[in-house]
Amino acid sequence: MAITFTISAHDGQARRGELHTAHGVIRTPAFMPVGTAATVKAMTPEAVKSTGADVILGNTYHLMLRPTAELVAKMGGLHRFMHWDGPILTDSGGFQVMSLSKLRKLTEKAVTFQSHIDGSTHELSPERAMEIQYLLGSDITMALDECTPFPATEKQAEESMQLSLRWAQRSKDAFVQREGYALFGIVQGSVYPRLREESAAALRQIGFDGYAVGGLAVGEGQELMFNVLDFTMAHLPQDRPRYLMGVGKPDDIIGAVMRGIDMFDCVIPTRAGRFARGYTDEGERNLRNAKFADDARPLQEGCSCPACSHYSRAYLHHLFKADEMLGPILLTWHNVHFYQKLMQDIRAAISEGKLAGFAEEFLRRYGKHREADDAAA
Amino acid sequence: MAITFTISAHDGQARRGELHTAHGVIRTPAFMPVGTAATVKAMTPEAVKSTGADVILGNTYHLMLRPTAELVAKMGGLHRFMHWDGPILTDSGGFQVMSLSKLRKLTEKAVTFQSHIDGSTHELSPERAMEIQYLLGSDITMALDECTPFPATEKQAEESMQLSLRWAQRSKDAFVQREGYALFGIVQGSVYPRLREESAAALRQIGFDGYAVGGLAVGEGQELMFNVLDFTMAHLPQDRPRYLMGVGKPDDIIGAVMRGIDMFDCVIPTRAGRFARGYTDEGERNLRNAKFADDARPLQEGCSCPACSHYSRAYLHHLFKADEMLGPILLTWHNVHFYQKLMQDIRAAISEGKLAGFAEEFLRRYGKHREADDAAA
Repeated sequence: MAITFTISAHDGQARRGELHTAHGVIRTPAFMPVGTAATVKAMTPEAVKSTGADVILGNTYHLMLRPTAELVAKMGGLHRFMHWDGPILTDSGGFQVMSLSKLRKLTEKAVTFQSHIDGSTHELSPERAMEIQYLLGSDITMALDECTPFPATEKQAEESMQLSLRWAQRSKDAFVQREGYALFGIVQGSVYPRLREESAAALRQIGFDGYAVGGLAVGEGQELMFNVLDFTMAHLPQDRPRYLMGVGKPDDIIGAVMRGIDMFDCVIPTRAGRFARGYTDEGERNLRNAKFADDARPLQEGCSCPACSHYSRAYLHHLFKADEMLGPILLTWHNVHFYQKLMQDIRAAISEGKLAGFAEEFLRRYGKHREADDAAA
Repeated sequence: MAITFTISAHDGQARRGELHTAHGVIRTPAFMPVGTAATVKAMTPEAVKSTGADVILGNTYHLMLRPTAELVAKMGGLHRFMHWDGPILTDSGGFQVMSLSKLRKLTEKAVTFQSHIDGSTHELSPERAMEIQYLLGSDITMALDECTPFPATEKQAEESMQLSLRWAQRSKDAFVQREGYALFGIVQGSVYPRLREESAAALRQIGFDGYAVGGLAVGEGQELMFNVLDFTMAHLPQDRPRYLMGVGKPDDIIGAVMRGIDMFDCVIPTRAGRFARGYTDEGERNLRNAKFADDARPLQEGCSCPACSHYSRAYLHHLFKADEMLGPILLTWHNVHFYQKLMQDIRAAISEGKLAGFAEEFLRRYGKHREADDAAA
């Protein structure tokens, strides 16, 4: 086996475990901060590490365009280039090609597209996606798939899913097997149980080190997302990590963990940090809100992150009003810390068999205040 | 005496010393990073401290407008508000009123102006400048002066200087004397020896804890600036710290230290860091320059700052090309570290009586490459 995954506790469908990679251990359920362009925005790697994050995500699409995978390889690989010595998972580029690039042309062989940066033309095939992630030195490589748009008819979803399956096989064939390095397949099939089951079964047949659920968090809403997880998870192997791509808000994460998901990534904590939105146990707070101008309390009482340990809401408010970079720096730090603390609490609750109670208590506080704060903003 | 200044070594006109304030010791010659709006841009206070900076500068003009001195006082003072427990020097606001505000009206009593942020009308008098700096909790308060524009006729410079002297007396009268807290006067007089001498003599008569040289670094050029220092310094007391406001580049600082200056502040290292310009022993480097795209070397060999310890020029180049916040974060950190290392080397050279040799060697390397790099940029 390329990577080892051990499960130490179950609580309902939820699992607590450890994923052993070439660059260290990932404690699951895990949240991966997103380091799009070889940097987790507004954070040093030391800051990321200090939050308790074990693994970060890099974006193949962004890195292949700038600075290019070849340049990163020449500089010693992504870990060395960006000074992150922990595990790195890279996506395959498929999602960003669909959401960011221009003049896409999708064929059986590959997708060609124009860069959103300079309009230059590029091709991404399963083989090229494997090559790029190999050059980057990813611990966990994602197979190239087509992220099925939402909504899609069952026929559209099936054709797209079948293409992704053929690309999954080509990804597997092109992937360079090494000890400590993993390749994950991606289940597609939109909201259709038959397609999700067929996709999962075919991927298991090919054989991957882990399985991602793709095509969600694309506008379908939480209820439908949970519904898809409910009928998809049963078709994934128990002994392999499961990764829900691009998710999500704290309540999304808790619900997905309770349905058996082990790994998450999302830009929410970092993006929200740049836009003055702070995550707390009592919901999201918009630090630009005038009510914080003379609020001497920390963003969240009891939080041990640097933003809450040393600064007031009034100071954070001031930084955002004055467009000072330290605002995004501190708030991003807090948000990523908050997410990692949530994962830590989730893991502890699973070990204690108390996840349902933890979830209920968390969501009760979190949901109530989120509405109150949004109404006041 | 409100603050203690001890001189431990002389080397020509240069002095090495220690200034003891309520919030700690400032080793001189000292460079103060500028924390305009209650933050040294793009740096955490821990990062600032790690560079070896003993003291930072805050701007009365910016803070009085946003978040206001009253708000800062309510939050426990500037040290607590921004989480900097070392000494803070605040300017009086006079310079920024002249350079940033709109619709200024200068009378004997005060200057009224409109905020550059929201157009609101404010008044700054010597008494109000003292009150604001008291509310902020500055260790070193600057008297309110009029920064004489350059160029100015001798008549204009004399009238302006005389107003500054009357404001200096009113500043002294309004300043609240406390152990560990200092008030500095500011010598004006433009480029005219007679006026500088008269200004210095009158300020000594009033009696200040330290003396700043103002009205320089306003476009007069290094030669003329050094010339003014040459005929001004003789009129300042030997046993009090001397502060050259708003200066400067490394070669400006070295030349001014050799003329007897003990303290400096300047936005150059922080501003340059945000605009991809890195300071090195071999001159300034523009990290956006394409020649750094695949340069695996650190910005400066042997530099112990985080940017040079962990990253390549290629990575810094990538960050600036991708508009990633970590670029300004790392490069500002490096630049402030570079300035503090320069001050540390200057202090060591003074103690060893080798300042002239150090200066010659530094300027030989620094000057040569600066030109080369600019030509290539």
